[in-house]
Amino acid sequence: MSASRYTYLGPEGTFTEAALRTLPEAATRELVPMVSVPATLDAVRAGEAGGALVPIENSVEGGVTATLDELATGEPLMIYREVLLPIAFALLVRPGTLLGDVKTVTGHPVAQPQVRKWLARHLPDALWESAASNADGARLVQEGRYDAAFAGEFAAAAYGLEPLVTDIHDADNAATRFVLVGRPARPAARTGADKTSVVIWLGDDHPGALLELLQEFAARGVNMMRIESRPTGEGIGRYCFSVDCEGHITDRRVGEALMGLKRICPKVRFLGSYPRAGVDPAELPALRHGTSDGEFAAASDWLARCLDGRA
Amino acid sequence: MSASRYTYLGPEGTFTEAALRTLPEAATRELVPMVSVPATLDAVRAGEAGGALVPIENSVEGGVTATLDELATGEPLMIYREVLLPIAFALLVRPGTLLGDVKTVTGHPVAQPQVRKWLARHLPDALWESAASNADGARLVQEGRYDAAFAGEFAAAAYGLEPLVTDIHDADNAATRFVLVGRPARPAARTGADKTSVVIWLGDDHPGALLELLQEFAARGVNMMRIESRPTGEGIGRYCFSVDCEGHITDRRVGEALMGLKRICPKVRFLGSYPRAGVDPAELPALRHGTSDGEFAAASDWLARCLDGRA
Amino acid sequence: MSASRYTYLGPEGTFTEAALRTLPEAATRELVPMVSVPATLDAVRAGEAGGALVPIENSVEGGVTATLDELATGEPLMIYREVLLPIAFALLVRPGTLLGDVKTVTGHPVAQPQVRKWLARHLPDALWESAASNADGARLVQEGRYDAAFAGEFAAAAYGLEPLVTDIHDADNAATRFVLVGRPARPAARTGADKTSVVIWLGDDHPGALLELLQEFAARGVNMMRIESRPTGEGIGRYCFSVDCEGHITDRRVGEALMGLKRICPKVRFLGSYPRAGVDPAELPALRHGTSDGEFAAASDWLARCLDGRA
Amino acid sequence: MSASRYTYLGPEGTFTEAALRTLPEAATRELVPMVSVPATLDAVRAGEAGGALVPIENSVEGGVTATLDELATGEPLMIYREVLLPIAFALLVRPGTLLGDVKTVTGHPVAQPQVRKWLARHLPDALWESAASNADGARLVQEGRYDAAFAGEFAAAAYGLEPLVTDIHDADNAATRFVLVGRPARPAARTGADKTSVVIWLGDDHPGALLELLQEFAARGVNMMRIESRPTGEGIGRYCFSVDCEGHITDRRVGEALMGLKRICPKVRFLGSYPRAGVDPAELPALRHGTSDGEFAAASDWLARCLDGRA
Repeated sequence: MSASRYTYLGPEGTFTEAALRTLPEAATRELVPMVSVPATLDAVRAGEAGGALVPIENSVEGGVTATLDELATGEPLMIYREVLLPIAFALLVRPGTLLGDVKTVTGHPVAQPQVRKWLARHLPDALWESAASNADGARLVQEGRYDAAFAGEFAAAAYGLEPLVTDIHDADNAATRFVLVGRPARPAARTGADKTSVVIWLGDDHPGALLELLQEFAARGVNMMRIESRPTGEGIGRYCFSVDCEGHITDRRVGEALMGLKRICPKVRFLGSYPRAGVDPAELPALRHGTSDGEFAAASDWLARCLDGRA
Repeated sequence: MSASRYTYLGPEGTFTEAALRTLPEAATRELVPMVSVPATLDAVRAGEAGGALVPIENSVEGGVTATLDELATGEPLMIYREVLLPIAFALLVRPGTLLGDVKTVTGHPVAQPQVRKWLARHLPDALWESAASNADGARLVQEGRYDAAFAGEFAAAAYGLEPLVTDIHDADNAATRFVLVGRPARPAARTGADKTSVVIWLGDDHPGALLELLQEFAARGVNMMRIESRPTGEGIGRYCFSVDCEGHITDRRVGEALMGLKRICPKVRFLGSYPRAGVDPAELPALRHGTSDGEFAAASDWLARCLDGRA
Repeated sequence: MSASRYTYLGPEGTFTEAALRTLPEAATRELVPMVSVPATLDAVRAGEAGGALVPIENSVEGGVTATLDELATGEPLMIYREVLLPIAFALLVRPGTLLGDVKTVTGHPVAQPQVRKWLARHLPDALWESAASNADGARLVQEGRYDAAFAGEFAAAAYGLEPLVTDIHDADNAATRFVLVGRPARPAARTGADKTSVVIWLGDDHPGALLELLQEFAARGVNMMRIESRPTGEGIGRYCFSVDCEGHITDRRVGEALMGLKRICPKVRFLGSYPRAGVDPAELPALRHGTSDGEFAAASDWLARCLDGRA
Repeated sequence: MSASRYTYLGPEGTFTEAALRTLPEAATRELVPMVSVPATLDAVRAGEAGGALVPIENSVEGGVTATLDELATGEPLMIYREVLLPIAFALLVRPGTLLGDVKTVTGHPVAQPQVRKWLARHLPDALWESAASNADGARLVQEGRYDAAFAGEFAAAAYGLEPLVTDIHDADNAATRFVLVGRPARPAARTGADKTSVVIWLGDDHPGALLELLQEFAARGVNMMRIESRPTGEGIGRYCFSVDCEGHITDRRVGEALMGLKRICPKVRFLGSYPRAGVDPAELPALRHGTSDGEFAAASDWLARCLDGRA
């Protein structure tokens, strides 16, 4: 049955599969690799899968535009979980290959900027050519087309390779963020350390529109965590904005900010509220004065009393 | 019975009485002049009167501080109506007095700046001395202590005087605004051309607090019509703010702005929502995009759909 | 010679004279009491006095509107110094009068709200009548018209009275602020703990104009210390704003804010930069990051380098 | 000599070459295709070329991240010109091929989303595979590996192909923006219809930092045209912002906004002021009141007069 199936951006052996396997429910699902982000998500839209895991943001390369654009357009989808995976490549080789033997290396184009410094230091003369995916790079090494591939260490076995060097990453803290996407339903339950994602279109082309958008969040003390402009396709200079803010749609400050956006913008697409990966609610900073649910409720009560002449 | 009695800032024959008599219900009330703004309002607080009419703002002299301060402190009161009265003085004299005979003039200190230019042009040598009220000035002319008094033309008969010159006012558009005050109850009904009055205390002494206050209004497209700082009495540099904004507390943009103020400020006193004097709802400019009750309701529905996965 | 003469709001024996005498230069000036704020200031405008001391703000009663309006209109004047005087009244009586003998009391109308609680506690049955000034009240006691007057303790001797009770003030921290005004010249020297005063007219009647005004200050990290709306005399709802901000016109953040106001407002009147009374520059909080003169200069240098292709 | 050489993102026959050839000076330069954006720009950094043309923004795909990141980091470069090229693909085939013969198509991955709808309508069964560049796709058709390639019509001749269909573009107004980059020097001359590009790093991670950044522009009436977040490489959630605003660094409103950014942000990189492609200064909307150079100069003069006591 489809609900028991999760698609992910394949092929097998990529970081996306590794990220998916960190989710407990993955153990009980059929995991199906797909050839592209659109294909991965369309399987969910078509009801052929209950969920889909795709990368959405990379701390080195930035937003994954295919994912951002797929979520912003077409039949609506929602995000229910996020997964953060530290980036650490292994250099995979055919058994017996030594570092000194490596003349050609391959990997996904996105991998290159993340291992560039390592390459310059350890394999300054090696020739880089891009592969369609990190796993595909491993396959090409298996076939003998390249001497080595950058991929996840977990990909070695599937291609009869061995990891010559592991834990390669130019930048500390490098990570990729993945999201588990499904058809629209009730948002994930509030945990106290949540994130809300929306896509916002600015109505007319007036210059202060972005400022107004940000002020809808700021006026309610809702912190923005990520903002990414994406072209709407209507010409240079026309953008929509993909935004993550902290908090859950059921937090009253978040709900009021979202309603404010909805009123002033021609289109807002709610992409979900879900737990922030790796964040303990107890460690979050205090909310700005006047923005807790309790303070919202107290103000609401006060207004009711004003309307009754009892304030 | 007390509800049938209205107090007003006396004495009889002043502009306040004239303003009160413009209200239809004044015809069926016992109208009682009082010696001061506090006395006028305390009669309402004590249940001895159902309403009180006091001046609150003068287009020449500014806010009437006694009224502002009485409404901000003590037992709460609410505003139910406002009355705008154009300022036009008459020069009242004993019958037979000619302009050339006038050597001394009197009137309320507030009157002086409003007739100063007229005096300089027509009675440059006349000596001005202040009276306790415009009506009291008329009485002093009746008694022969002064040659002429500035007062409302309507005050002449009561003191056996005649208006030698009428419609005296240095500034065009000069007007005084009065408010009808009662004990707290349900606000006046919404008319579509309403005004809401509040007093707002700023919490800590941080420099941007006033800006934040204004942004609570601006974020919801609520226009401010008047802002007046008043000392809290706690020392130089400590203020509260008396604010009028357009709209009615039942307008959702106004209600949300008020709740926002309530959340961020240590104290907000709601002074009422009431019809704007002399303003036809049909002539008001359009609301800012996204701030109508219909748009608030639509955004609220959208949020509910998001929570259900049906947005 | 006129420069050696200072006028002040009289009569002799009032708090204004006491405030003036706290200035070292007062010892070498001829001090001339005047009958009103306009008269006090007009003597300076006419060149008959080199300076004038007038009250501008009272922590109980608020802004002294006569002073605010005189400084906002007419021939320009500038503020060069401020004086803060704690408010403390003495109850002056004819020698031999006991507290139990006091049936009638007088004083300036402004004094009343500042001694109201004291009166209610110690002389609940005494009848209050207002006098033209605190000193005039003392004179009326001397003449036997009232039993006691509230005035400064220093006023006793001049009228043959004695202070029966001293240090009377309902509110702690109550103070009056006075300003020393002269004809326009170079502002007072910068001390590091300065204040700048301006009067600002808002151009058209658009609702966000006050917010824009405040943002000119906020954008440069300049804290506002006082804002007071005053009617322009052109009708209800038309205001100008009397504003004090911290800092000196030669501080670059203040200069840039003032130029910003000048550009967006139809009229700005600079009233002077002068030392803050009783404030030690060493005790001031740190400036907001990015607003010091050094940071302004560094940014200016950077811009120059950008223009040269050397940034 | 190097100044007479311009590099561009190759290979020959791509849109970048076509864009470069729209510049009059291209006729007198040696035009050298390079294999990547970094290589194209590094030739300028190394002094081997006087200028480099690279794509920076695409109305369908968004910002060209390689270009944005290269300009933000490494040895500084500056933008001197921009070129807007409407996107219009031709379907190139070997002579004699009919539309019905086309079973496989290729092109740059960026081309695919721009011709997807056209493909679905006209070649619903054709198989797409990506090529390293549009020109490389043409070469692969020439070699017989694919039946057709999407590329610029101008690329046909170089590969012995013919355009079977021209002017293919899913979206109207689709365009790519290219920039001509050189080593830092004086900015391009002001034309009255200019654009200024900067990269801005936000200091600490405080939530309102982006809002503050935008307010530096807004406070001076400078309109933002594009904003793009890019990861700094320091971990998920750390961004810098690539911003285009209207106006020239020598416009005083722009200069003041840039200095404001410089003061509050830890790092600002000025990327140049240059003419807006295809915009006639005469057609620009009026500046916001108070932001013209004349108004800046008048405010500056006023401040000088205030300092002299002559305001």
